[in-house]
Amino acid sequence: MKIVIIGSGAIGSYYGARLAQSGQEVHFLIRSDLETVQKNGLRIEEEGKETFLLKPVKAHASTSEIGPCDLVIIALKTTANPALLDLVPPLLKEDTMLLTLQNGLGNEDFLAKQFGADRILGGLCFICANRLAPGVVKSFFPGYMVIGELGKSPQNRTLELAEVWMNAGVDCRLADSLQEARWRKLCWNIPFNGLSIAAGGIDTESLLAKEGMPELIMDLMREIQSIAEAAGIEIEDSFLQKQIDITYAMGPYQPSSLIDFRLGKEVEVESIWGEPVRESKKLGISAPRIEMLYHLLLAQTAASVAK
Amino acid sequence: MKIVIIGSGAIGSYYGARLAQSGQEVHFLIRSDLETVQKNGLRIEEEGKETFLLKPVKAHASTSEIGPCDLVIIALKTTANPALLDLVPPLLKEDTMLLTLQNGLGNEDFLAKQFGADRILGGLCFICANRLAPGVVKSFFPGYMVIGELGKSPQNRTLELAEVWMNAGVDCRLADSLQEARWRKLCWNIPFNGLSIAAGGIDTESLLAKEGMPELIMDLMREIQSIAEAAGIEIEDSFLQKQIDITYAMGPYQPSSLIDFRLGKEVEVESIWGEPVRESKKLGISAPRIEMLYHLLLAQTAASVAK
Repeated sequence: MKIVIIGSGAIGSYYGARLAQSGQEVHFLIRSDLETVQKNGLRIEEEGKETFLLKPVKAHASTSEIGPCDLVIIALKTTANPALLDLVPPLLKEDTMLLTLQNGLGNEDFLAKQFGADRILGGLCFICANRLAPGVVKSFFPGYMVIGELGKSPQNRTLELAEVWMNAGVDCRLADSLQEARWRKLCWNIPFNGLSIAAGGIDTESLLAKEGMPELIMDLMREIQSIAEAAGIEIEDSFLQKQIDITYAMGPYQPSSLIDFRLGKEVEVESIWGEPVRESKKLGISAPRIEMLYHLLLAQTAASVAK
Repeated sequence: MKIVIIGSGAIGSYYGARLAQSGQEVHFLIRSDLETVQKNGLRIEEEGKETFLLKPVKAHASTSEIGPCDLVIIALKTTANPALLDLVPPLLKEDTMLLTLQNGLGNEDFLAKQFGADRILGGLCFICANRLAPGVVKSFFPGYMVIGELGKSPQNRTLELAEVWMNAGVDCRLADSLQEARWRKLCWNIPFNGLSIAAGGIDTESLLAKEGMPELIMDLMREIQSIAEAAGIEIEDSFLQKQIDITYAMGPYQPSSLIDFRLGKEVEVESIWGEPVRESKKLGISAPRIEMLYHLLLAQTAASVAK
């Protein structure tokens, strides 16, 4: 299978290297780290596994030199989505699949509008991986991936794609409803990524220890539950409580948005908070806390990038 | 009139010096700045007026050496309220009046519970004054003061006290309902003091320029309006809009809580946000945004003081 990975952060590098390791033809579009990766390869460290060095890497500075592929995996930050308008077209043939591994809501719809709904799949990555240096990624917890089709249940190609992932050592599961999977993931991301920034830049353990915070987290999740319900998706109360329980067990964890914020990098405010707020308004559901969090994050991240 | 000022920040120093200048016998309880003030006096700078130097100052390190007074003016930060339990008793005789010039809700009730409701008055200071250095205060805008009785309309003593202020050059007005005046002031303090911190430490001009912020400010004020209404106090819609309009006119203003926050000083979270939240619960009024702001400020200010 000819595959291209757009975006060479932790997610793109890790999954691309695993696919290449399993024998797939994997091309990487790489911007800032290109020279380093061409020279040193891609190094994947993982707890409990032997370190893997992919070298040489099929690394490219532009998608034109890669040409049409079977599968385009999008692992860019959502704040860079407009760049996809130029990056994707050279990679497409009639049956090219586009799989977005990006955070939040609206990415599949954005791609569908630009490149046709039929080719769109989405994936959710439950993994804890960091980019340690250019071309070096460390995975602390392999976790699993959930993939699904845009607006329909899994097809033959979805099953085949899951097999590609399994052969690459990635625990891949199928979502009957990609939209439901996205809303469920937001039950964690909206409160924990958001409040860890808005409460002053603190990890999830410190956050949960603050007076009134577990209640506020639950109130935020209930708003998500209401929006999802209006969209025809049922999320049970026990699932909400479980999000809090597992987070206590995670210890002093720094959500990815908090890491971005602290490094002065762009935070994915629109896809994680902005789209759910717009969805709530479309559906006529009141979500005062999510909306307030969205505007505080917009203001705080603007202030941070401006510093 | 024998008067004592507890708290020698900008408010206490400014008003105390003006009263002394008008011929009243004014004693000051001063902690950290005591030696400087004893040596150099209290210097009041005010735009459009001659600089006034009060020297010598009746400055004391303890209230026991001052003894019973006619009027005790409390200008401490509300976060220091527990200290009043020891500071006030030596100052009291049967008809001593206690006038709190502090921010937010709950201060009159706290004093009433400790020292008897009959002697309690409250004042709201619409002034813009900063302490430039120990013993040096600058007033940028004299503004006015509103005073009222706890739980009753103005009495003879209230009118007499207003005259004392007017003779000291302070534009003093009478509040028929002190409680109503407090809720009206909160319409500004809750959103502007709070969001200027929670949005990343920005002045009111930058705050109002952020996408969605004027709407969020209005939503917060509507919650205050609802709580006040349940408490029997009517605040008209036009008053809310006026708070936003006047703030546009103020330019890049830093609310006092933001200044405290930036200097790593304690922020008056309980009296400005905590008390209104507790009031809303007592009255059964939903105030999700104020409550969220309260918990974010609790977390942020704890993080700030801990730094």
